[in-house]
Amino acid sequence: MMYNYLLTIQYDGSRYKGWQRQGEEGGNTIQSKIENVLAEMVGKHVGLIGSSRTDAGVHALDQKANFRIAERLAESEVQDYLNRYLPEDISVTDVTLVPRKFHARFHAKSKTYLYRIWNRKYPNPIERKYSMHIKEPLDLAAMRKASQYFIGAHDFTAFSNAKSKKKSMVREIYSIEMSEKEGFIEIRIRGNGFLHNMVRKIVGALIQVGLGEMEAETIPEIIESKDRSRVGLLADACGLFLEKVELDTQFLEGEKAI
Amino acid sequence: MMYNYLLTIQYDGSRYKGWQRQGEEGGNTIQSKIENVLAEMVGKHVGLIGSSRTDAGVHALDQKANFRIAERLAESEVQDYLNRYLPEDISVTDVTLVPRKFHARFHAKSKTYLYRIWNRKYPNPIERKYSMHIKEPLDLAAMRKASQYFIGAHDFTAFSNAKSKKKSMVREIYSIEMSEKEGFIEIRIRGNGFLHNMVRKIVGALIQVGLGEMEAETIPEIIESKDRSRVGLLADACGLFLEKVELDTQFLEGEKAI
Repeated sequence: MMYNYLLTIQYDGSRYKGWQRQGEEGGNTIQSKIENVLAEMVGKHVGLIGSSRTDAGVHALDQKANFRIAERLAESEVQDYLNRYLPEDISVTDVTLVPRKFHARFHAKSKTYLYRIWNRKYPNPIERKYSMHIKEPLDLAAMRKASQYFIGAHDFTAFSNAKSKKKSMVREIYSIEMSEKEGFIEIRIRGNGFLHNMVRKIVGALIQVGLGEMEAETIPEIIESKDRSRVGLLADACGLFLEKVELDTQFLEGEKAI
Repeated sequence: MMYNYLLTIQYDGSRYKGWQRQGEEGGNTIQSKIENVLAEMVGKHVGLIGSSRTDAGVHALDQKANFRIAERLAESEVQDYLNRYLPEDISVTDVTLVPRKFHARFHAKSKTYLYRIWNRKYPNPIERKYSMHIKEPLDLAAMRKASQYFIGAHDFTAFSNAKSKKKSMVREIYSIEMSEKEGFIEIRIRGNGFLHNMVRKIVGALIQVGLGEMEAETIPEIIESKDRSRVGLLADACGLFLEKVELDTQFLEGEKAI
């Protein structure tokens, strides 16, 4: 028998080199920190599959991940064990036993990223590690207009630093919403998937539009060009949060052990 | 001529030994960090008067402070200079020229402190430095009931670690408000002044009531006793924010230079 556990994870990405394990040792990554605790729990290596490979410095409020083990442990036992031994900037907020076939990456239907901009002249000491500071006032109406050109399925080569030339660069963005409250501009981008650095380059372009350095109408042309040099600003990692991973619920139903 | 400048200051208190300068060198305190930059600005030592002496690790969203110098500088010039040279966990959000007689400590009418408790079983990685984690569910109704016994003018000896035996330990609390939202309990305490550790000991007692370790009705008896050993819990510094300092506006009006 194998048991498949789904984790919901929050983390402060400030001091990590992103989600994905690096090299033999795993490196200072969130995946390897959790895998190390799981290995302690069951006495051997456990592979953890995450929904999103967040970059170095990026935070998560709702990362999803699953792992399969031969032991049948209570969900609360797994959660307590992880939270006892994980560092305080990583937290497991939920553990659920799911059918063996469930896969956190393949069965993620959509992802929502939140980007936070602090848009006042003076710095914000409390939120400085969880937002990007833009001193000059941003033109939100222009940014909203620009954002709409990203909606839909496009080849996002120009808005990524993804290396592979073989894999498809087409991703679909379902929505981009912007709000402003007490000095913070929040940008929420929901899509079926995102290329490496894609959210930060889209936000970078929106900031350039908001500063009057770029016309909103230029966006379709840049997408079309597939030219990475056209977007000069990569928004800071610290302003980015993986806010929500929506799972395909059909794979969460059924027998929990096979 | 002397010019008196009123500063509004925010800070993340995590890495400081509180507001007040310590010893000759000033120590790693917020007051001394700001005084050092002011000294660079005008070429000699400038004394800074703060409204509240926040403890080590305590944050501020609205600290007020004033200093007097012979130079007539533009308010925006002072703000820009300070924010350019202060560390990123201290920010000056406003600078206003005020009458010479204004004094940030004597003319503070009330202070509001905000205390944040994260009350879920699992830790909160993003807010861990800005809240106290209490895993066990707190009984908010009991805490609300207990809080009302603190309202009014009392000798708060039992709820402080203030050293002086000569000065009055009487302070007046105007209101205590509690709210709960998405796992956070927020406690706002407004009063005419607070003794050393007073907010954290009051919150400590409220937490003990919320955990069922103490009866709400015991509070008046503890106040009466003036016995410091009766409150065993000093709430963590990292959950405390100086949220608002209300100034006596009559001292803010009139001639700006004398």
